[in-house]
Amino acid sequence: MEQERLEQVFERIKNGDVRLVSRLIRNLEDKVPEAKEVIKYIYPYTGNAKVVGITGAPGAGKSTITDFLISSFRAQDKTVGVLAVDPTSPFTGGALLGDRVRMQNHAGDSGVFIRSLATRGALGGLSAAVEDAIHVLDVMGKDIIIVETVGTGQSEVDIMNNAHTILVVLTPGMGDDVQTIKAGIMEIADIFVINKGDQPGARKLYMDLMRALDMMQDLPGGWKPPIVKLESIAKPAEYANQVDSLKEKIEEHFRFLKDQKMWELREMRKARVQLINAIESQVLSPILELLQKDGEFDNMVQKIAEKEISPHEFAEQIRGKYLKI
Amino acid sequence: MEQERLEQVFERIKNGDVRLVSRLIRNLEDKVPEAKEVIKYIYPYTGNAKVVGITGAPGAGKSTITDFLISSFRAQDKTVGVLAVDPTSPFTGGALLGDRVRMQNHAGDSGVFIRSLATRGALGGLSAAVEDAIHVLDVMGKDIIIVETVGTGQSEVDIMNNAHTILVVLTPGMGDDVQTIKAGIMEIADIFVINKGDQPGARKLYMDLMRALDMMQDLPGGWKPPIVKLESIAKPAEYANQVDSLKEKIEEHFRFLKDQKMWELREMRKARVQLINAIESQVLSPILELLQKDGEFDNMVQKIAEKEISPHEFAEQIRGKYLKI
Repeated sequence: MEQERLEQVFERIKNGDVRLVSRLIRNLEDKVPEAKEVIKYIYPYTGNAKVVGITGAPGAGKSTITDFLISSFRAQDKTVGVLAVDPTSPFTGGALLGDRVRMQNHAGDSGVFIRSLATRGALGGLSAAVEDAIHVLDVMGKDIIIVETVGTGQSEVDIMNNAHTILVVLTPGMGDDVQTIKAGIMEIADIFVINKGDQPGARKLYMDLMRALDMMQDLPGGWKPPIVKLESIAKPAEYANQVDSLKEKIEEHFRFLKDQKMWELREMRKARVQLINAIESQVLSPILELLQKDGEFDNMVQKIAEKEISPHEFAEQIRGKYLKI
Repeated sequence: MEQERLEQVFERIKNGDVRLVSRLIRNLEDKVPEAKEVIKYIYPYTGNAKVVGITGAPGAGKSTITDFLISSFRAQDKTVGVLAVDPTSPFTGGALLGDRVRMQNHAGDSGVFIRSLATRGALGGLSAAVEDAIHVLDVMGKDIIIVETVGTGQSEVDIMNNAHTILVVLTPGMGDDVQTIKAGIMEIADIFVINKGDQPGARKLYMDLMRALDMMQDLPGGWKPPIVKLESIAKPAEYANQVDSLKEKIEEHFRFLKDQKMWELREMRKARVQLINAIESQVLSPILELLQKDGEFDNMVQKIAEKEISPHEFAEQIRGKYLKI
């Protein structure tokens, strides 16, 4: 893409051109090379937005919390971008439905931009698309960017690493008692949210979580993750009040990061993950493409399947052939 | 490792040397180079075991099902190996506890070998360790290898791709209604299990699942994933009977794969995933190690964090420096 065209695109993102931004995010999901060019161009202008990550099991109520958080930040005149990373199976249609509901609640508010990103079967590609989409919303001028993911697997932890402040949402009686909280999640949580906190088991979940937190030795910089309890959405006005308190905790964490010079550490963590993702796509993808083009990959797969040669031996050959080291 | 030593290790695995096998699996988790040498050596002798994958949300009752499946296969004099992939946070101690309970139920039965593999924060490394551990249990002579993972993220799908037959365990009222079943899982399930099928919501879950299955167009080779309902563990004898039916469904699926010449396709799928994993560890890891050794990686991270240069630009430089293409 020419310099002049990149400059134009940059200006249109800055001016909040919703159609262009939507198309750009879709192209990032689809790994269109021109979209990467745009990211390279706009990257030096990023770094103004505060990024909040929200993760938790399916059905934990993350979308509702996001919805109320948007209103809470908007009441302070902050602009909000939302990236809902939805790994729901395409044919159940979960992604679009959730998106549409949320769109309606904030329709006509130009200070809110919501998009969902879906896994399209691409191995590891989603995390890269999310980080690039964050850069776009950042340049678009959004003050707060909320990244919401379903689940607590390794790919979700990768995505959460793009956030300054990470919320882990738990609910009583849904199988996510403290024993089953997955590796990495406990460690990366900055704020725990117990949603549906008026349901049976909430007190036990709270106590278990407190005990687990007490056992954690290295609290980064002295921040002890608070546990915020939200009750039933059945009383929307009260729920909104509780989410306002949650929002205050988030801002408290932002301040903590800034005061303790930890903001830079978070930026370093983000940079590290982004660099590894970028190396993966620049180094691994071209090798796999070449192998696939001349049928070598399929031959190798055949021989591995027939137990002739182990995958490790082929990988060593590939290393010798394509790497200078 | 010398040829003679490899031959010895191979013999000891074949003879079911539990201590050696346990140490080997631990070394595979820790990526000890010698352990990989062993895998390369034994690989041509694999391919006799049938691999069953079990996945589902935390608390869905996968361990109990595995426990009863072991007994059911043992009643037929089949030997069983179990790899419980436990991504539970280390300090909650979930992994070891579960393992110990299961060990007790089959203690003293030399036809059963159970090990858990934990995520040690290694990005993507777990999937590679699991596939290698499967090879070890295969050579050890286990007829059936059960691989159990918690959760339904991308890494779990990767691990499940090592199985011939994949069970997805769902429970009513735990937030995993059909809308929230994640991408990839619905598509890879060969058998659905509704556990705790006597609890409220089981009927709705069953109907929803049926409807979703009816919507699926491409049923691979004509296999329509059956839905097996298990009721409460409160009545162990009845539960055991129900798990026996589940075991029969699993064997039916084995026969289906063999009859429809689909066994080979599964082996190809496994081979493909294994080759990609192997290439990742042979190509990506040495580059990252080199970059880290001379401090270049940290410099890059610093510049990315300061928004000077985008990660993509660095990745292109790295490609130019280390790749022959």
